[in-house]
Amino acid sequence: MTEEKPNAFYAQSGGVTAVINASACGVIEACRENQEIGKVFAGRNGIIGALTEDLIDTSFESSSAIAALRHTPAGAFGSCRHKLKDPKENSTEYARLIEVFKAHNIKYFFYNGGGDSQDTTNKVATFSLENDYPLTCIGIPKTVDNDLPITDNCPGFGSVAKYVAVSIKEAGFDVASMSRTSTKVFVLEVMGRHAGWIAAAGGLASNQDGDAPHIILFPEIEFDEKKFLAKVDHCVNEYGYCAVVVSEGVRRKNGAFLADSGLTDAFGHSQLGGAAPVIATLIQKNLGLKYHWAVADYLQRAARHIASKTDVEQAYALGAAAVEMALAGKNAVMPIIVRASSKPYSWSISHTELVNVANIEKKLPRHYITEDGFGITTACKDYLSPLIMGEDYPPYTDGLPDYVRLQNKPVAKKIKEDFDLGGNKSTISPLK
Amino acid sequence: MTEEKPNAFYAQSGGVTAVINASACGVIEACRENQEIGKVFAGRNGIIGALTEDLIDTSFESSSAIAALRHTPAGAFGSCRHKLKDPKENSTEYARLIEVFKAHNIKYFFYNGGGDSQDTTNKVATFSLENDYPLTCIGIPKTVDNDLPITDNCPGFGSVAKYVAVSIKEAGFDVASMSRTSTKVFVLEVMGRHAGWIAAAGGLASNQDGDAPHIILFPEIEFDEKKFLAKVDHCVNEYGYCAVVVSEGVRRKNGAFLADSGLTDAFGHSQLGGAAPVIATLIQKNLGLKYHWAVADYLQRAARHIASKTDVEQAYALGAAAVEMALAGKNAVMPIIVRASSKPYSWSISHTELVNVANIEKKLPRHYITEDGFGITTACKDYLSPLIMGEDYPPYTDGLPDYVRLQNKPVAKKIKEDFDLGGNKSTISPLK
Repeated sequence: MTEEKPNAFYAQSGGVTAVINASACGVIEACRENQEIGKVFAGRNGIIGALTEDLIDTSFESSSAIAALRHTPAGAFGSCRHKLKDPKENSTEYARLIEVFKAHNIKYFFYNGGGDSQDTTNKVATFSLENDYPLTCIGIPKTVDNDLPITDNCPGFGSVAKYVAVSIKEAGFDVASMSRTSTKVFVLEVMGRHAGWIAAAGGLASNQDGDAPHIILFPEIEFDEKKFLAKVDHCVNEYGYCAVVVSEGVRRKNGAFLADSGLTDAFGHSQLGGAAPVIATLIQKNLGLKYHWAVADYLQRAARHIASKTDVEQAYALGAAAVEMALAGKNAVMPIIVRASSKPYSWSISHTELVNVANIEKKLPRHYITEDGFGITTACKDYLSPLIMGEDYPPYTDGLPDYVRLQNKPVAKKIKEDFDLGGNKSTISPLK
Repeated sequence: MTEEKPNAFYAQSGGVTAVINASACGVIEACRENQEIGKVFAGRNGIIGALTEDLIDTSFESSSAIAALRHTPAGAFGSCRHKLKDPKENSTEYARLIEVFKAHNIKYFFYNGGGDSQDTTNKVATFSLENDYPLTCIGIPKTVDNDLPITDNCPGFGSVAKYVAVSIKEAGFDVASMSRTSTKVFVLEVMGRHAGWIAAAGGLASNQDGDAPHIILFPEIEFDEKKFLAKVDHCVNEYGYCAVVVSEGVRRKNGAFLADSGLTDAFGHSQLGGAAPVIATLIQKNLGLKYHWAVADYLQRAARHIASKTDVEQAYALGAAAVEMALAGKNAVMPIIVRASSKPYSWSISHTELVNVANIEKKLPRHYITEDGFGITTACKDYLSPLIMGEDYPPYTDGLPDYVRLQNKPVAKKIKEDFDLGGNKSTISPLK
């Protein structure tokens, strides 16, 4: 009897994106192509799937279904917001992960997420080493916020950036048409809790003086109401209208978010939303101008229909590279994008130790923001522009994109004991 | 000396759409192709351009620039919200129009707008007849709301419908991924003051039980808070999450809009916005579920990047047909879409008298809404589905759509006297 090939575990973590499934596609296709890895088991709803031994056997999925992940937004296996405790304080979850991995002969751990998840991946790597379980741990970057360090950019960001730039360009044309007798100010709220990368991408829509957006509000720049209103007034006088992109993370002088709903998520982050109506009301009250506002919310990060081709290619390549690195014997690393040149754009894949990226947020550097704090500089445009290049349209049937739904067949459980998700219970409702 | 060919006047009115410029393209290309019409003069900012003798000479635009209108959203010549007074009460504006048309040898009047504008076109036709000025008046339908009678559908609607269906499908995939530990309810607010056509289009995203959207809130159905909350609760228990599409025009039992900002536009319509946050707050307060909400606002009607091919073709064809009808001697009519069959979809162009469409709103018939009031029926799907068929992507440069900006060169003024826009002054700010 020959020894069974070791299996791989793959999970999606945190907020999903238009291209996280392209990374899943890269992982699964790369695993299928080589002879060293058995099956790819995916975590149903991310790491919770591993903790509760709720694994998905991806080997039941056809090659065309897996290929279709490349053009399907959101998380095909489900994601979750569940941060593992520090193993120094409580190692129960880590021990459980190893127990489940052992039971299913899982020797490869691929974790697709942002800074929090890279921290978790690193802790799992350390714990398995200390507990003599041979587990190769590779993080795969994903975050619409583009806030991971070391890597030139993060998969998921390029597509949100393209969505925001296209949307504010289109809305700018709309408001310009209407401004003579109707709407003078349009405000678009975009994501970005602490980093203004997404808001900055709106600036790509502007090619010449007077183009929308006229004002961008970044979380990196303290909101100055008086200065902002003066700028709006100036734009309306100068161009006939004013288009504003505001990041959800913009704060007042006292540190409070412009729109703080008072809720927090499982990571303890505030749940934001509603900066646009706050801004619009300020404008109406102080300048008496007719406004319209939009809040893109999930639409922006799910918008696979207008994904950046560059982003899709990089997301796929990073997934495939994670498998190659694992097979090459690397551990506790994350594949990264390295930019060789912006014009013409040229990139390659390298890697970094997970410890370098865990829990570090890369904010927009000050020299990417214009001196007045309301726009982006040429340096910023040069950085952002390649990331939205190219269109990668999904196939359509009856006027709607053909997104795939996998079968997601469960792997038979091998462990008798259920696992108590403990302190995170309150945020978890029973699955059907 | 031969007599100069008569010129045509074209203007855009009211809220712009992703395809109103495709109608403009149809008008201008059809005029250029025949030998009977001289130049096409466009009204800068709609009918105000005619009243103030602020005409744009489209003959300066290259054929490629005019062709590019077909893939450019919003109003290339500017639109306006300015309703002419009833000529029986005050005919000053009508007399001025005739004066300007006479001065510029304009014998054709093409007015591209919704119900209010068709009413205006009809009044101009009557006034010119009564005052012995030979003016051929043709209305061209345009409204994202799809609320004009007689015509099977309105240009502009199909593209908004496609945007809303694609967006709620994508957001539905997103929320489904997140719902295990995070967001359980997603609310998307769409346009539609009095008619639920746009909200209904969201229903096209759902192919099987459990697909998003799970709930649609129509302006035609009185909002029943208790019933709504029970349905949300049911969906979250049944499917793990709930996706809601809410029309901005949804009203409570007392007749008040769910979100009434208290402002009104130049036509006296209330300016709405913010039904989504109201709904989301209700859900949070009563069911304690984590939510996200989006308000698409102008993004939906400007979204040329995801326009319906059917819509673009019809918008263009109606513009061209308006010219053909004018040359065939028709007057005070509007070209309309006639549906021969839904499966396979087949349509042609006919026409109706303007008096039949002026100021009549076509609401969603009750049999298009499911019995519980929260969804659309098969009959509704059969009607809507062909309207979002086909993609018609604009060309891209550097990752962004190549939308055209015309030169919009003015026609030299011939009339000494300025025109006082009078009662509408308050809504009009000085042009630069």
